[in-house]
Parts: sequence; C-alpha cells; structure tokens
Amino acid sequence: MRWKKISDAVVRRLPLYLRVLEEVSRDEGRKLMSSQELGERAGVSPALVRKDLAWFGEFGKQGVGYEVSYLKDELRRILNLDRQIRVALIGVGSLGQALTRYNRNRVRQDDSFNIEIVALFDNDPEKFGMEVDGITIHPFSEFEEKTRALDVRMAIVTVPADQAQMVADAAVAAGIRAILNFAPVKLVVPEGVRVANADLSLELQRLAYYLDD
Amino acid sequence: MRWKKISDAVVRRLPLYLRVLEEVSRDEGRKLMSSQELGERAGVSPALVRKDLAWFGEFGKQGVGYEVSYLKDELRRILNLDRQIRVALIGVGSLGQALTRYNRNRVRQDDSFNIEIVALFDNDPEKFGMEVDGITIHPFSEFEEKTRALDVRMAIVTVPADQAQMVADAAVAAGIRAILNFAPVKLVVPEGVRVANADLSLELQRLAYYLDD
Repeated sequence: MRWKKISDAVVRRLPLYLRVLEEVSRDEGRKLMSSQELGERAGVSPALVRKDLAWFGEFGKQGVGYEVSYLKDELRRILNLDRQIRVALIGVGSLGQALTRYNRNRVRQDDSFNIEIVALFDNDPEKFGMEVDGITIHPFSEFEEKTRALDVRMAIVTVPADQAQMVADAAVAAGIRAILNFAPVKLVVPEGVRVANADLSLELQRLAYYLDD
Repeated sequence: MRWKKISDAVVRRLPLYLRVLEEVSRDEGRKLMSSQELGERAGVSPALVRKDLAWFGEFGKQGVGYEVSYLKDELRRILNLDRQIRVALIGVGSLGQALTRYNRNRVRQDDSFNIEIVALFDNDPEKFGMEVDGITIHPFSEFEEKTRALDVRMAIVTVPADQAQMVADAAVAAGIRAILNFAPVKLVVPEGVRVANADLSLELQRLAYYLDD
C-alpha cells in the first residue's frame, strides 16, 4: 500500500490519463504531451491533471510537458498494470457471459490491457463443465481451490441480488481483494477489500436526473 | 433544470438513498429513519446525508428523522423517476443483449423501477427484425423516427469503440439527452447532454490500484 492516502477520486482519474497516453502513443507516436492537452483529452482540467500526478512524483517539465512513454509506464506501475491481473467471474448468466466475452475480446485486441477473466463460477449444476470463450464454468464450491491455484485476487460478481453478499463473503474468505459488483445491493466487506459498484440501475437513475425539462 | 447547481457527486448519491428507502419501506414497512441509519445503509456519513438532502428542501425533523414514504417520493420526483423513462440501446451484440434482458427483468421484478429499454438498434442487416426479450432490432438509420415516436430521450451505447462517437452524434441529433456509454472511448457531446461512462475496463483498472501488496 505505497500510496495509501491517495483519494479515490484521484485513483479514478488515473485510468483516464493512461488511456489518453496509450492512444497518443499508439496512434500518433507522440513523445511529449502538455497537461493542457492531456486534461482536454481526458475530460479533466489541466490544473487537476498536474495536481493528481504530483501525488506520485515529478513527471512533467515546465514548458515541455510530460514524456508520454515514461508517464504511461509509471501510471501502469502505479495502477499495478505492469503485471497480468487475473479475474474470476461469479454468476455466469447472460450478463456474466457477455462480460466474459467483452473482457477477453478486449484483452485480445489490446496488448496493453492485461486484466483478464480466467475463471468462471456458478451454482447451477447444468452449467458445470460448459465453456464461455474457452473458459470452463466450475461449481462455486471450488472457488477457493481454483482461484488460489490461478493466483486470482479480483472478482466480478454477476449473481442475483439475494446471493451477492453470500458470494462476496466466500470470495473474500478465499483471498479476493477487489470486487466489481453488478448486483443491485451494497456489499459489506472487511477493511482492505475494495468494492466498485457497476450497478447499471443506479447509473440509469442518476442519468435520469438530467432529463429534466 | 430546477436544481442546476447541484454537483454530480450529490446527484450520484441520491439513487443510493432512494434504494435504501425503498428497501426499508418494502421489506420492513418502516415509517421513519434517522440520517444516521440512512447513511450507514447507503455507505455515506450521516452529516453528508443531511447536507445532500438539504439541497432539495427540509425533509427531516430534528430528533425524529426522515419520513420514509415522503422522502422516497420526493427523491423519485427529483430524479425524474416519477414517470416512465424509455431507453434505446444501440449495438445489440452479446453485451447489448445481456443488458437488455437484465434491464427488463429488473423492470418486471421491481414495480418501482421504471427506466426501461424499449427500442433496439444495430447496423447489421442480419439482426434487423430479430427480437431480444420481445423487443425488435431496427436499423440504426431509423433511430430518429423510432425514438421520437416512443419519446425516448436516453440511450445506452454498446457499439465498438470506433463507432461510438458517430453513434452518439446521431443519437444527440435525434434528441437524446443522456447516454450510458459502454464503449472504451470518451464521447464528446454538446452542452446539455449528459454522458455516464460504464466502461468496465476503466473500473477494473481502477480496482487494480488497490491490489497492491
């Protein structure tokens, strides 16, 4: 936990910066980029870009900007993306299957994206042994055994709402440290475990606010 | 635009409060709730709950708390959820299909959830006329005609990255005011149009930060 005090809001913006840097590096072969341009392309003010990055070191040079390749590598290191991150998905219904295909397509199409779903779990015996994009579905009872063998520490939860907390508890007991939760419930997890909510219903409700006439 | 100056961060928490109020109202028949308890169940500090809600009026009584049913109705009104909100989904691949089923199941199971996908669009002629959960897939060229007839002002974009901006431009020109974007690109839209990013790759990258040993 090298950067323990960095706020969530800062961490949330780092992947946006990384995406811009990877785009300009790949598509335009750019070497340098100003905080002005990085901010514009990431949808963040240049001052905030500078402030966010200053948490992690001195990356830019006044009047010159950021070295694209260096900053990109540093951001990847800060976000732990300089290694492969293996993910388990729990609940292989239609959403779980779609997310699996989506994630694995992304990994195949983009060399720099290395967060990969490598294990699937469900509690429906009819699904055991079936495959999605080459990954076998295992009984959730084997979660700990399989994920420890594969060094999985991140999980995506796509089970129904009434099973999500039970599944999260078991996943955390098995060593999972980060959960992307699609179930429409607030998961309670011990300190040191991170949950990100991908509850689409909440996002839609939030957007509805702006439909006001 | 009654509450124009309310920050995004506040708006983002309102659906969390609403979810708690709907749960306690439905499952426990509760009439009153303190900001303390509302905060705990929504994962927000009680002080912030009070501050957030104070933007919209005087909802609580000192020492008594909030009237659950009244606050719930007010939040639904503030979020424009007191009417049906019709949504179009563009890009009916496996993710788009899964989201359609997920959304419509949610609408069927939960009377109070009334943001509903009612129209599907794709540009693959092989998909035209096919149905997902009873909804016909139409050519994207008919987007404006169909969505205006159905009074759709919100869209979910699940097309590949390189088509997302084109699709968003056309949707906005057709009267769409809010977009939930699953494509891994930053959409540029005119003022008055809202985009929420549901780019799963960004969420996973953000979570990876916390996997640090």
